Amino acid sequence: MAYINVKEGVPGIRSLVMFRPETGKPLYDLAQILLRGESTLSEAERELIAAYVSSRNNCMFCMSSHAAASRCLYGEEKNTVDEVLKDMQQSQIGDKLKALLNIAGKVQVLGKEVKEKDVEAARKLGATDREIHDTVLIAAAFSMFNRYVDGLASWTPTDAKMYEEMGKRMSKGYVMPQEVKTDI
Amino acid sequence: MAYINVKEGVPGIRSLVMFRPETGKPLYDLAQILLRGESTLSEAERELIAAYVSSRNNCMFCMSSHAAASRCLYGEEKNTVDEVLKDMQQSQIGDKLKALLNIAGKVQVLGKEVKEKDVEAARKLGATDREIHDTVLIAAAFSMFNRYVDGLASWTPTDAKMYEEMGKRMSKGYVMPQEVKTDI
Repeated sequence: MAYINVKEGVPGIRSLVMFRPETGKPLYDLAQILLRGESTLSEAERELIAAYVSSRNNCMFCMSSHAAASRCLYGEEKNTVDEVLKDMQQSQIGDKLKALLNIAGKVQVLGKEVKEKDVEAARKLGATDREIHDTVLIAAAFSMFNRYVDGLASWTPTDAKMYEEMGKRMSKGYVMPQEVKTDI
Repeated sequence: MAYINVKEGVPGIRSLVMFRPETGKPLYDLAQILLRGESTLSEAERELIAAYVSSRNNCMFCMSSHAAASRCLYGEEKNTVDEVLKDMQQSQIGDKLKALLNIAGKVQVLGKEVKEKDVEAARKLGATDREIHDTVLIAAAFSMFNRYVDGLASWTPTDAKMYEEMGKRMSKGYVMPQEVKTDI
């Protein structure tokens, strides 16, 4: 049971956003812009960065839901997600994405862990300033989401089917739960 | 020098928000609601939680600026901030705030570090669900801001006077830098 009085049966961050929609709104806005907004990184790749950081933070809710969203967006190449979560360096993804995930992994530990050589390595493989910026901010944002979800012990479902459904919904965009829209 | 091409002479998160105002907007909105919105925790106390987490993350820019904002808001009791940053448990703050800072410190490490007994201790000292929620989210949000600022090696001024001025400005609210307002 969550540490605060949130609606029963609502999983993870959705229950927290329903408890406090005023802070939920910018959190959903941030997720929507970072993960679904215009970018030269695909939506599947951005969800993979989110799942990778969440996996390293041992946040089962965020890892399972964003891995499901990434699988849904990768479509035929959905095994990519599980390969990366198992062993990123040995996976079949391209070298640029590996270099960006390396940066995301450093951010997960602490900002100062990212060194100039990490950024230069990504740049040499074609990463732009905007891609480097967004990778760092996605990794930083999931360092927040993971702590928010687990720090209040919100409900983490264990049913794989539930995450598959979540992933499908998330692949279409991040929309505040209807019940708590602040404009109604 | 920052790892990406941001405007020179602009410190910390402001330079990053000017680089990418689309993501800057929800970040500033979140800070404004959490730190300046309606709450039973004072603005000085909320800035203290932000400075405390930033200090533990060794993020000099966020620690120095939010400590300055907290000092400004504490006014006559401004020594409170330095006492807490030196040794929170030995400081003169009330027991409820100590219990909330204890939770914030656990969140800084990782969400799952917050245990039921930490939350119960705060509750017994009068903390409400909303105060516990906001403490966890402030600590989680600064786990993001700290990583964002340091992960891209944004400029960290060393002049104490600059932070004093920042603190005064921040005490009035979090407003996107004019140059990058998305509506002009």
